[in-house]
Amino acid sequence: MPDASDPRLADYTGLRDVELRKSLEAEHGLFIAEGEKVIRRAVAAGYPVRSVLLTRRWLGSLADVLDGLGDRVHVVDDDVMEEIAGFPVHRGALASMERRELPSVGDLLHGALRGERTAGTPADPGRILILEDLVDHGNVGAIFRCAAALGIDAVVLSPRCADPLYRRSVKVSMGAVFSVPYARMADWYGGLAEIRAAGYRLLALTPASHATPLNRLDLRSACALMLGTEGDGLSSRWLHEADEAVRIGMDPRATARGVDSLNVVAAASIACYELAARDW
Amino acid sequence: MPDASDPRLADYTGLRDVELRKSLEAEHGLFIAEGEKVIRRAVAAGYPVRSVLLTRRWLGSLADVLDGLGDRVHVVDDDVMEEIAGFPVHRGALASMERRELPSVGDLLHGALRGERTAGTPADPGRILILEDLVDHGNVGAIFRCAAALGIDAVVLSPRCADPLYRRSVKVSMGAVFSVPYARMADWYGGLAEIRAAGYRLLALTPASHATPLNRLDLRSACALMLGTEGDGLSSRWLHEADEAVRIGMDPRATARGVDSLNVVAAASIACYELAARDW
Repeated sequence: MPDASDPRLADYTGLRDVELRKSLEAEHGLFIAEGEKVIRRAVAAGYPVRSVLLTRRWLGSLADVLDGLGDRVHVVDDDVMEEIAGFPVHRGALASMERRELPSVGDLLHGALRGERTAGTPADPGRILILEDLVDHGNVGAIFRCAAALGIDAVVLSPRCADPLYRRSVKVSMGAVFSVPYARMADWYGGLAEIRAAGYRLLALTPASHATPLNRLDLRSACALMLGTEGDGLSSRWLHEADEAVRIGMDPRATARGVDSLNVVAAASIACYELAARDW
Repeated sequence: MPDASDPRLADYTGLRDVELRKSLEAEHGLFIAEGEKVIRRAVAAGYPVRSVLLTRRWLGSLADVLDGLGDRVHVVDDDVMEEIAGFPVHRGALASMERRELPSVGDLLHGALRGERTAGTPADPGRILILEDLVDHGNVGAIFRCAAALGIDAVVLSPRCADPLYRRSVKVSMGAVFSVPYARMADWYGGLAEIRAAGYRLLALTPASHATPLNRLDLRSACALMLGTEGDGLSSRWLHEADEAVRIGMDPRATARGVDSLNVVAAASIACYELAARDW
């Protein structure tokens, strides 16, 4: 049984240390899936397994996943797992997975508007989200889960937006980061132009009172809803680039209650729901 | 300057230790507000200050709050604050506040249906949330923020639902836990009957396909929307007690994407938005 200093376990080091993980995962092109359910979804989505680190009691339920991995299956005790990861891993199994090359934004949109929508009706206009510089991995994961549930075809990330394959994003998304297609823009300044050129109307979600309430939006065309960073919202550059500013109607009493906005996940949920506007 | 062992700082011990905090806060009838903004909201909402623990650089901006507290203002260095709290307190100021007695559910509903709605139109039907056994304090806080933003009049908690005045709930709510009236049921088994008797239609939010989609709901009567615990949803007892089961319409492709539900905050956001159904 390997101990915490075993170099074969280096993929799993310091899972709570964001900076360490960012450099380690970028350097080796890997990401971590945590728990049986998430590992299965990553495998089903076609990500190759680099190795699995688990405690003995998970050997049985993951047997089919482990089959063929040979000496890339590492069984350790709880305390060794905690020592490597830096916290108690309640789900008892971690897999190091290989990342794949992301599609370009152009290829993603081509797929979102066409081939990927075969389960919908051909008349469905496209619906995508564009996330600008979200910082919190949990928020990115939660938005992917909403996107999967509410019929969003694809997600485009700004160059600096937090990573959907970071452990916490994956976990909070319930694996939706594996099933909702996404791409990352190469160019923040000019990136929106390509999306508009692909036929999407750019909608900027903002709390500004002059914006169009979401429930009065014309939903007949393909729409790309832009969501800004947790604190400051969308950049002025992107607000200026948008075809239309949209807002979620809020109770006039909210200000007296000390609340002047929704958090980004709540706002994204409502916006995805309105964009769907379907009798499901 | 006091050190970490000073008994006057006992209110602030181990802020990340949920069990310790629960017993300590219950025993002394206190809660912790973190950061200038939240402390100000708690004070404005009328909660008495027991004491304040802060670093020197916050003395100026909180001067008016500290005025009159005398020797109940404790100035410490960052490392002492971290030693007491158990983590680095980035917002630099903590206040220990006295809890107040909560209204009974009966008194709360009387207020929610009448006096508290003066800013709305008299014809507004009441809107409340009932939270059953939510475990996560962040989720409770996020739901209070949505409630404040989207015109929910009041919140009723099941006997075991997580505490809205726990530090993380307060923080995530942006202080909405101070402005949205709430009460805690004394009796889980029979508690819903009193709410129905007060004139509310009991709506159970569930992913079940036989439930009424929220957007087809008759919204003319006063509604109490019931939200269940993060993992299992509503108890069968409460589902059975409900006047109507309601659901959020989801994309038929979501199952193929591995997603069969929304998280409770996303679901609450959408449900509050639909219940409001107003042209704000």
